[in-house]
Amino acid sequence: MLRTPLLSAPWAGGLALKPESLQPTGSFKVRGALNAVAALDPQERARGVVTHSSGNHAQALAWAAQAYGAAATVVMPESAAPVKVAATKALGAHVVMVPPAQRDSTVHKLRDESGLAFISPFDHRDVIAGAGTVGLEIAADHLEFDTVLVPVGGGGLISGIGVAMKALAPHVRVVAVEPELAADLAESMAAGERIAWDTALTYRTIADGVRLPVVGEVTWPHIQAHVDEVVTVPDDAILEAMALVTARSRVVAEPTGALAAAAYLADPQRYGNAVAVVTGGNADPTLLSRVLNDHVQ
Amino acid sequence: MLRTPLLSAPWAGGLALKPESLQPTGSFKVRGALNAVAALDPQERARGVVTHSSGNHAQALAWAAQAYGAAATVVMPESAAPVKVAATKALGAHVVMVPPAQRDSTVHKLRDESGLAFISPFDHRDVIAGAGTVGLEIAADHLEFDTVLVPVGGGGLISGIGVAMKALAPHVRVVAVEPELAADLAESMAAGERIAWDTALTYRTIADGVRLPVVGEVTWPHIQAHVDEVVTVPDDAILEAMALVTARSRVVAEPTGALAAAAYLADPQRYGNAVAVVTGGNADPTLLSRVLNDHVQ
Repeated sequence: MLRTPLLSAPWAGGLALKPESLQPTGSFKVRGALNAVAALDPQERARGVVTHSSGNHAQALAWAAQAYGAAATVVMPESAAPVKVAATKALGAHVVMVPPAQRDSTVHKLRDESGLAFISPFDHRDVIAGAGTVGLEIAADHLEFDTVLVPVGGGGLISGIGVAMKALAPHVRVVAVEPELAADLAESMAAGERIAWDTALTYRTIADGVRLPVVGEVTWPHIQAHVDEVVTVPDDAILEAMALVTARSRVVAEPTGALAAAAYLADPQRYGNAVAVVTGGNADPTLLSRVLNDHVQ
Repeated sequence: MLRTPLLSAPWAGGLALKPESLQPTGSFKVRGALNAVAALDPQERARGVVTHSSGNHAQALAWAAQAYGAAATVVMPESAAPVKVAATKALGAHVVMVPPAQRDSTVHKLRDESGLAFISPFDHRDVIAGAGTVGLEIAADHLEFDTVLVPVGGGGLISGIGVAMKALAPHVRVVAVEPELAADLAESMAAGERIAWDTALTYRTIADGVRLPVVGEVTWPHIQAHVDEVVTVPDDAILEAMALVTARSRVVAEPTGALAAAAYLADPQRYGNAVAVVTGGNADPTLLSRVLNDHVQ
């Protein structure tokens, strides 16, 4: 795991980036996965861990389990990209492909019948605590700022960052960022209760890391306690920010990784001096090539 | 200036990358420029600094001068890319455009008549010492490796890294990397004396950061004392490495920034556990888009 630096982004005014793209496996997810695997008692760990993910958490948990010599099983939907399946297997994980509708039942069966420890991608206290180290590092590096912008899918990352920031730098506004096309948290915050979207609706956004119908049961109270505001951005702004972060700050951002920077760029005055978390850099090379061509110079 | 992390690159076996792309202005050049400006006595600094550069040193010196409130003058060839001229001006520098043949005479005139301090891009002890902090950081982070691979143009970076590595980790082989199309150092090392190439010949390589006819007078004795080997790589391997470093390690590499990784990828067995310095990330977005499309997936 990497203690990532904070990068000032003078091309975007008062913006600094927290480049989690630089982590092993390319996203912040290693922080939560490693903390959760480390927190298991040795007997639990020896039985192995299981999760479901078609994305960055899959590789992160495989990586964390490998670091501890533990067995990892990852349940993936049959629609998962072959390159992500291969990357997860390359890290030593056992991959079980299932129809999307059987995802949860398969995980529960492996947990209950084989005794595997279920490490949720976000709805797990040790995963949230691990993700929160992003906030601890930001506060250690830099307190002269006004806003931290954090992408939200299940809410694990912002739950951890929110706790850290409110403890260490309570003057900093914690802003959640969602795609307009998967804005279940904005709706939930307005309603004061968790509102789920149809999964199919959330799949319209290019930001595949936050295509979740609703935030978690464990993360929701964290979000209610520590998040000051939710903003949404359209997909074309996400793609433009992906190109700009990659070309101008020289760190690759996947679409979800560019969400927070996209929110800042839409209204820099509103956020003052801000830190945007670049959650990951596992961009499809064809997409990255296209957005660089379309949006820079 | 940034204390850059060391990134392991498991996609390339025993390779780790030192990602200087993450520096302000996008290259390692800020290290030498900042050290040289800092080392001036206050009266010298008040008169201002001058250099010649069409590339990364121009922006680095402008940035370093700005940090000290000093005036920077940068002599650039009329052929310089407008985007680089604009970036240098945006950092507060005064840019003087001249025909390439008048470069040195213009710098000398500004030095002698206006009393500006000349900060060479590489042939300057304080610039070499600043660049050497790359080597100090590598040795502080990681000593369990066999080889450090460093791109060479004028030789400032490898001079500094060579001194640092031989002092702190003398078991590490220091390997210089040049494009086949600008291999003046390979020829100089074989001859035991500095051999200059025609500038026009060196301009054939895509690696624009190392298009220099010969290493410096100050750097040459450092190179003779501390460099164990010189290897050369063809331009197509540079472009492929540029795509792979960017896509797989999620740090943008400009062509010169990919030189050292290209050398490693051509013969991983030869170098064992190696660190490759990614010298910079100021890639032309159109070129980056094209190489991602051509070389990844």
